[in-house]
Amino acid sequence: MKIHLSLIGMGAGHPDHITRQGMAALQRAQLVLVPHKGAEKADLAELRLELCRQLLPPGNAVVAPFDMPVREGADIDYLGAVDRWHDAIAQIWLDTIARHLPGGGAVALLVWGDPSLYDSSLRIAQRLAQRVQLTTTVVPGITALQALTAAHAIPLNDLNAPVLITTGRQLRERGWPAGADTVAVLLDGQCSFQTLAPEGLHIWWGAFLGMPHQLCISGPLAAVSETILRERAQARARHGWIMDTYLLKRVTDDET
Amino acid sequence: MKIHLSLIGMGAGHPDHITRQGMAALQRAQLVLVPHKGAEKADLAELRLELCRQLLPPGNAVVAPFDMPVREGADIDYLGAVDRWHDAIAQIWLDTIARHLPGGGAVALLVWGDPSLYDSSLRIAQRLAQRVQLTTTVVPGITALQALTAAHAIPLNDLNAPVLITTGRQLRERGWPAGADTVAVLLDGQCSFQTLAPEGLHIWWGAFLGMPHQLCISGPLAAVSETILRERAQARARHGWIMDTYLLKRVTDDET
Repeated sequence: MKIHLSLIGMGAGHPDHITRQGMAALQRAQLVLVPHKGAEKADLAELRLELCRQLLPPGNAVVAPFDMPVREGADIDYLGAVDRWHDAIAQIWLDTIARHLPGGGAVALLVWGDPSLYDSSLRIAQRLAQRVQLTTTVVPGITALQALTAAHAIPLNDLNAPVLITTGRQLRERGWPAGADTVAVLLDGQCSFQTLAPEGLHIWWGAFLGMPHQLCISGPLAAVSETILRERAQARARHGWIMDTYLLKRVTDDET
Repeated sequence: MKIHLSLIGMGAGHPDHITRQGMAALQRAQLVLVPHKGAEKADLAELRLELCRQLLPPGNAVVAPFDMPVREGADIDYLGAVDRWHDAIAQIWLDTIARHLPGGGAVALLVWGDPSLYDSSLRIAQRLAQRVQLTTTVVPGITALQALTAAHAIPLNDLNAPVLITTGRQLRERGWPAGADTVAVLLDGQCSFQTLAPEGLHIWWGAFLGMPHQLCISGPLAAVSETILRERAQARARHGWIMDTYLLKRVTDDET
């Protein structure tokens, strides 16, 4: 069985984040895999299905939803748990492909954000490549970080200055990164900015970026931290889930 | 004069990097500003004009090319030179808008990559806002970094690990960033990876990303550094200009 897999960055929540390249790749697919990650993320699966409805001519491709396996609690062996989870997902991809496209062919997966940034699809594809003949194409997509800076209409970097992209877990476990002035935080379900000394830090926070119910809050961390926690909790209760990301910058007194 | 400015991320070299959101924003514009940065970057201006030809209905908008001012040599006062350059560009934007859209209206600018990452448009728009009544919308676009990881079909980050985005100048002046394992380098006209001790570093390099003449080279830095320098010099001579970017990772012996 020969498979050509297109990992298509679908953007960060807005159906119009999809690129022309992404649309063309989706339209070349014979099978589109649509992961379901449980009821609370039904909105995300729905966005994938909506893109398929808008972009795929009727009868063009099989759209195959599949349930994502649940990852083990990972407080002790985080990387091991992720590793076993990726193995399980690769097997589900393979089973779904074998069922719908037994002779092989062109398979597409719409990846939240961009396949390169805090996404597992490329690692799962590597596992698939050990079991079938596979070629993989990556179509880049808009990340949550770009949706965040666009929503706030701010640059990510200061002039000629570096930017550190990191995770909530890293920020909690290691504190403010040594030497950094600009830190973008993704994969943070725990508002890890609370663990930082807020003095001299400015935050640009966003949730449901690109979606109709997008939320944006910015200001000195000391001043807006409580507001973010409250708004985030309320929005999460209202929608049943939340995805958020934020940018932190050290600011000096002479900056506006 | 009231101006609504859309800064539209056009992607990193492929005309199909444009998003549906970008297409819609371009089609709402009454005036599209197209910067020309000298003969060697005519290809980039041409890509902007090509997008306008493909996406704008005839007579829909005025497409106004303008010549970018030349930035002073900046070895002594880099930030000052950039500051004065941004002032000069803001004045040209304003003059071009006043000429073609004297009553104000919707103006679009197609920004290479994404307006948030190593791009001046948001800073120039701030200057414009001091002179006219301005609202600014940012439409995110694919960055060269995403085009690089897509071309190599690799993730940007290791599992749950941070990524530092920096510039060639920073890498030359400060060396390998303390504590970093993954470093993405942009704005590097001088192959600053040459200044690093190559042991234990792997590089994924790309030039003209997304374009038909895209070049990709990857491998241990010690092994491929010379090849990159040679291929880059040849490609630059052939095309009259070059834009390239790369990702560096510290690799340990047990990684494949």
